[in-house]
Amino acid sequence: MAQKPSIPKGTRDFSPTEMVRRNYIFDTIKSVFQLYGYLPIETPAMENLSTLLGKYGEEGDKLLFRILNSGDYLNKIPKEKFQSRWLSGPSTSEISPFISEKGLRYDLTVPFARYVVQHRNDITFPFKRYQIQPVWRSDRPQKGRYREFYQCDVDVIGSDSLLNEVEQIQIIDEVFKELGIKVSIKINNRKILYGIAEVTGETDKFKDITTAIDKLDKIGINGVTPELQAKGISNDTIYKLMSILDSGPDRVSLSQFYDILKNSEIGMKGVNEIQTILGYCDDLLISNEIRFVPILARGLNYYTGTIIEVTANDVKMGSLCGGGRYDNLTGIFGLPNVSGMGVSFGADRIYDVMLEKNLFPKDTQETTQVMFVNFGEKEQKYCLPLVHQLRSSGINAELFPESAKLKKQMNYANNKNIPFVVLVGDNEMEGDYLTVKNMNSGEQKQMSLEEIIGQF
Amino acid sequence: MAQKPSIPKGTRDFSPTEMVRRNYIFDTIKSVFQLYGYLPIETPAMENLSTLLGKYGEEGDKLLFRILNSGDYLNKIPKEKFQSRWLSGPSTSEISPFISEKGLRYDLTVPFARYVVQHRNDITFPFKRYQIQPVWRSDRPQKGRYREFYQCDVDVIGSDSLLNEVEQIQIIDEVFKELGIKVSIKINNRKILYGIAEVTGETDKFKDITTAIDKLDKIGINGVTPELQAKGISNDTIYKLMSILDSGPDRVSLSQFYDILKNSEIGMKGVNEIQTILGYCDDLLISNEIRFVPILARGLNYYTGTIIEVTANDVKMGSLCGGGRYDNLTGIFGLPNVSGMGVSFGADRIYDVMLEKNLFPKDTQETTQVMFVNFGEKEQKYCLPLVHQLRSSGINAELFPESAKLKKQMNYANNKNIPFVVLVGDNEMEGDYLTVKNMNSGEQKQMSLEEIIGQF
Repeated sequence: MAQKPSIPKGTRDFSPTEMVRRNYIFDTIKSVFQLYGYLPIETPAMENLSTLLGKYGEEGDKLLFRILNSGDYLNKIPKEKFQSRWLSGPSTSEISPFISEKGLRYDLTVPFARYVVQHRNDITFPFKRYQIQPVWRSDRPQKGRYREFYQCDVDVIGSDSLLNEVEQIQIIDEVFKELGIKVSIKINNRKILYGIAEVTGETDKFKDITTAIDKLDKIGINGVTPELQAKGISNDTIYKLMSILDSGPDRVSLSQFYDILKNSEIGMKGVNEIQTILGYCDDLLISNEIRFVPILARGLNYYTGTIIEVTANDVKMGSLCGGGRYDNLTGIFGLPNVSGMGVSFGADRIYDVMLEKNLFPKDTQETTQVMFVNFGEKEQKYCLPLVHQLRSSGINAELFPESAKLKKQMNYANNKNIPFVVLVGDNEMEGDYLTVKNMNSGEQKQMSLEEIIGQF
Repeated sequence: MAQKPSIPKGTRDFSPTEMVRRNYIFDTIKSVFQLYGYLPIETPAMENLSTLLGKYGEEGDKLLFRILNSGDYLNKIPKEKFQSRWLSGPSTSEISPFISEKGLRYDLTVPFARYVVQHRNDITFPFKRYQIQPVWRSDRPQKGRYREFYQCDVDVIGSDSLLNEVEQIQIIDEVFKELGIKVSIKINNRKILYGIAEVTGETDKFKDITTAIDKLDKIGINGVTPELQAKGISNDTIYKLMSILDSGPDRVSLSQFYDILKNSEIGMKGVNEIQTILGYCDDLLISNEIRFVPILARGLNYYTGTIIEVTANDVKMGSLCGGGRYDNLTGIFGLPNVSGMGVSFGADRIYDVMLEKNLFPKDTQETTQVMFVNFGEKEQKYCLPLVHQLRSSGINAELFPESAKLKKQMNYANNKNIPFVVLVGDNEMEGDYLTVKNMNSGEQKQMSLEEIIGQF
């Protein structure tokens, strides 16, 4: 017998049960995006490598899945390369450009920037779009980390108004309210981080400081200090930095930063932005907790203003959603100075939280609601129009396709979680009624088709 | 300035307008699938090449997109290969297995068969699943043929009852009725084709005959005859074949085949199957035309019984949907003798027909329904809670994010096809009413928020 087939490591099949739950998450997110006027786009799974390379750092370039060129691709490699390979080289990185020109998308942000630049003449700005598609990374697979996973991104581009930040916080609040997950929305501003670098006299080390601050939450001051020292930052400055940040999230209130950053124009701008956003959020009665967290940094370099991260309150899990403002994302493709703001929802983690907290709804309109047992040819003919009538009333219904043993048919209904099973034999056909079994209660009663329809 | 970015040839971006239309098609198809008790699954974009290779014929193998292995893949090629390359070889096909182990899925059928075998212990049979995902083929791109496109497959596996055929014909009928496309459903049976080969004494040439019959519609008897001759089929037999089929679709009625195939047991089985299916379809009042077409053959080799193809009645276009019964699809993965029946809807062609016939609905719940003009900070604060109230009533609404010139804001609403624009200035705030402009009629009137909500 053939070997049992398998799928590439780090990828997954989704069963009907999983799909129904995942669709519940996607549909909830989508409908909130739409309530706020965002519209869907889709981009191809494959992008030119020239679009992808150099956008995710050296590490990211390595994690790209590359597509082999079609046809006799080896012929495109100059012969000398093979000669040198015979002796010692060439390296894989020397050969790759000759045999691969396309890669699978690594995120939805870079393809979105590419889309905006490519179609700029057809787009009305501000452009509010959402995009829900899989991305691929050849990361080492581990628990909760996959090589293929979905991202749900919502972005507005072409407007620097802080109302966009407010709107996306509303979206976050509403999505998690609808899903039943209690979250904390953490907010900071890259301008505040830059201000901190400025008042400590280290603006040229802004990137290193940001990277270190980003790790404070995980490895603490003792872990971060040697990293900063290694980057050539003086102990004096590290002390200053930590006295600003050491008390951890929340303990340093926003108002103190008006004082701390008073000598940094850009820092003050950041503080004012957060103040404005939080003011609007108060007016709009955001139901989840929202807090200013000065040690929130977020890894990605393209953020220039507001940054946001969302974590579940009572489940230990990484962030469920995150994003921020970028002032020049499309610049890499030749369209500079277009400001945007976007956040991304992590469907896999949201799924895990909902499963752990048992938050998925019991009822779903996606699965079969009524199954007719099949007792034979005569009964089939009698039942088919009835099944059809249920469907015409919008009820998902099926007739078991063969007159198998009753036990097999009931097992099928059970395994598929079908709530109602209809049994039609001679008595029912003569008496013009249906026997309906409620699969949850086990109760069985005689009903008309209209009564069944009335139940839904 | 940087070069304008682009996407790989044969792939597409989908704009919001296109997405809303495509979603309309997908949602319609999905909801019909669900009405009939089919449930969604998803499989990974990447499959092991061992799963894909050899399943689509030699031509298909060439059209697979292959993924380069991660890391230093060149190191895995034995050194001798490079030596021989320096001299003359190796060929690309010799090198490929060393540097690539994964490919992008080519269709949804093979991954489905793989899924069923891999998860057979968790599946309750008959297993009714649908799957709507993109597939990739490195075909030469041309009008209407893409390298990335969606397939919408619906299959039941683990039941050989003809009720499954009937059910899928109902699904086809309902999908196209809902989309507003008038179609012809053509039906034939591979057993009838085998019967024809049998009564003409050429069962060993069954494949060649099927391939030739498949082309009758396009190139006619004069085109097909030399092909059959080249395969070593006698002129006598060709004459016999053509006298069975030459009158073209429909002219030879099903009842004649009871006579033509009376000496072929398997052929008679095919005729009986079609008779049964058509009988059920009559009872169930299928609204689109359904006809027996003896020259319908379909290219794929795995079909063993019923075959179906659907074409639009008043648009010139290839088939919009097709499929059939297969008795041993999972056999290639080590699970023999599991019969299934499935059809696949071609979303791209359906899209083109609907666009040509102007069948997309004008109204959609996906786009913004009400936009508030932004006249400045005071007005923003006043409007935000009103916008929020609309959203709470399920109405897609947005406030323009900045107080740009009125003309720019109205243009935005126009381009986004937003039907209602709300204007709130000093008068409105003092008078506690809203000025609402109907963007279709141009009419402007004073309304309360409740009146606006009442409109939807």
